[in-house]
Amino acid sequence: MYVILGKNGYIAEAIIKELESRKLSYIALSRSDVDYTDTAKLDKWLSNNVYSKIVANHNANIINCAGYIGKPNVDACESAKADTIEGNVVLPSNLAMLCKSRGYLFTHISSGCIYGGYSKDFTEDDPSNFDFQNGSFYSGTKALAENLVQKECEKSYIFRLRIPFDEIESPRNYLTKLLTYDKLLDARNSVSHRSDFAKYCIELIEKKVPYGIYNVTNKGSVTTKEVAELMKEHLQLNNKKFEFFTNLDSFMQSVTAPRSNCVLDTSKIEQYIKIRSAKEAIADALSKYS
Amino acid sequence: MYVILGKNGYIAEAIIKELESRKLSYIALSRSDVDYTDTAKLDKWLSNNVYSKIVANHNANIINCAGYIGKPNVDACESAKADTIEGNVVLPSNLAMLCKSRGYLFTHISSGCIYGGYSKDFTEDDPSNFDFQNGSFYSGTKALAENLVQKECEKSYIFRLRIPFDEIESPRNYLTKLLTYDKLLDARNSVSHRSDFAKYCIELIEKKVPYGIYNVTNKGSVTTKEVAELMKEHLQLNNKKFEFFTNLDSFMQSVTAPRSNCVLDTSKIEQYIKIRSAKEAIADALSKYS
Repeated sequence: MYVILGKNGYIAEAIIKELESRKLSYIALSRSDVDYTDTAKLDKWLSNNVYSKIVANHNANIINCAGYIGKPNVDACESAKADTIEGNVVLPSNLAMLCKSRGYLFTHISSGCIYGGYSKDFTEDDPSNFDFQNGSFYSGTKALAENLVQKECEKSYIFRLRIPFDEIESPRNYLTKLLTYDKLLDARNSVSHRSDFAKYCIELIEKKVPYGIYNVTNKGSVTTKEVAELMKEHLQLNNKKFEFFTNLDSFMQSVTAPRSNCVLDTSKIEQYIKIRSAKEAIADALSKYS
Repeated sequence: MYVILGKNGYIAEAIIKELESRKLSYIALSRSDVDYTDTAKLDKWLSNNVYSKIVANHNANIINCAGYIGKPNVDACESAKADTIEGNVVLPSNLAMLCKSRGYLFTHISSGCIYGGYSKDFTEDDPSNFDFQNGSFYSGTKALAENLVQKECEKSYIFRLRIPFDEIESPRNYLTKLLTYDKLLDARNSVSHRSDFAKYCIELIEKKVPYGIYNVTNKGSVTTKEVAELMKEHLQLNNKKFEFFTNLDSFMQSVTAPRSNCVLDTSKIEQYIKIRSAKEAIADALSKYS
């Protein structure tokens, strides 16, 4: 039995869709259904509503899709530190403890934004190099949560998303952002097709891969300019001119928090599942983009 | 049965002394005794070691004296945000949850530094006005922890300390600080005599006052200059010249994080217990200072 927390979120939607397509049983909760930030309340609710089913099929799996991402963007986290800590550190830590105490499997959706730079393709063993000190407040909370979840609940998965996108227009969709932002930063990044991400997460769980951290992105990386070129081609935007910042400094002056740009190594998940390349996934999304 | 977490801390020492003088049974733990940041481990340890005693006398009381204060001072928290969040937010939140689930009474030592300025004498009902946005990172975590503890465990006390001191030389002792700092800021503040604080906390718990937040300071307030004058008088420092910053701006240039200066209203605790004035407590400490 999957229990999805934060059911209205961008990633939760895709995970729910994936579970439905596989006919896997799940319960999806929003905070207005059950205030899962109150762990005692969530614990009681789970005991009353799903515990018997969980015991029966031994695969209770709480997936935490909730978190504080900052709106319209990550800059908002710099001025809402308490909310950012509550959503991104306290909540996953509390959920990990609850899962540990009840023997539930815990899955936490994390982010690849805890790395920055191109000194290497970052693996799951690399410590964060883009955190409170060198990165943004948001990335600091995501890196801290990974450490806490691992410490508090060994029976856990941490799946790192990176720059989600798909064919459906949304303020969270990387492709939509590129189409709507006035000016872009050209940088190389790993990216995660939203439904690929959901599919890979559920595959990894269902295959019972070893507990731990997984970079869950498409294979390889893309630059902003490469994606812009693909957009022109697929969306017939021959007259559209994408404006780019001339350098990182001028981009940095336009934002409050530094942004993570990095490439994640995907060889760990590739041991277990087959994944699409970033370019293939982007071309596919653009071919259906609406 | 009292369980003191962070037994080697400055405040824990005083609380342990108070419990001993009252012949109240207690167990004091450091992280090397039991890693209480691992709640599952602490829970198990408590169940094995004290749970039967707790059930017998119905007053299980976890007192969290642990926290991350920054050394040599609160500036250190600005560059150790993850440790500050872990020690001051995640730990009390996890402990509150544990106490809630086991029915233990939870006492959390907080700080009056979540207020700044002299718009009023701050009561327990006033929201923090010196937090992540307007104060220091440290004060932000202390304010956030109060909200979480209250939300997660209604059977809890939050006791706010403010600028501790007593007659024993220590880098944590306000009087020692005034004697050793090169230059002082003259400001009016509430203060807490360390053993008065411990005594008041245990009195409030033993009297079973209503759960909630309490400002636990001596009555009234003192200015740095008043304390310096008392020091000259009691410690025969006639030739000592205390240097003061000429204004708040020049002080602020010497530190990284802003400092809280404020007066707390003590009328809530005075409904239940008798407290000494700040001046009386300081004069008493100075008369025995070594």
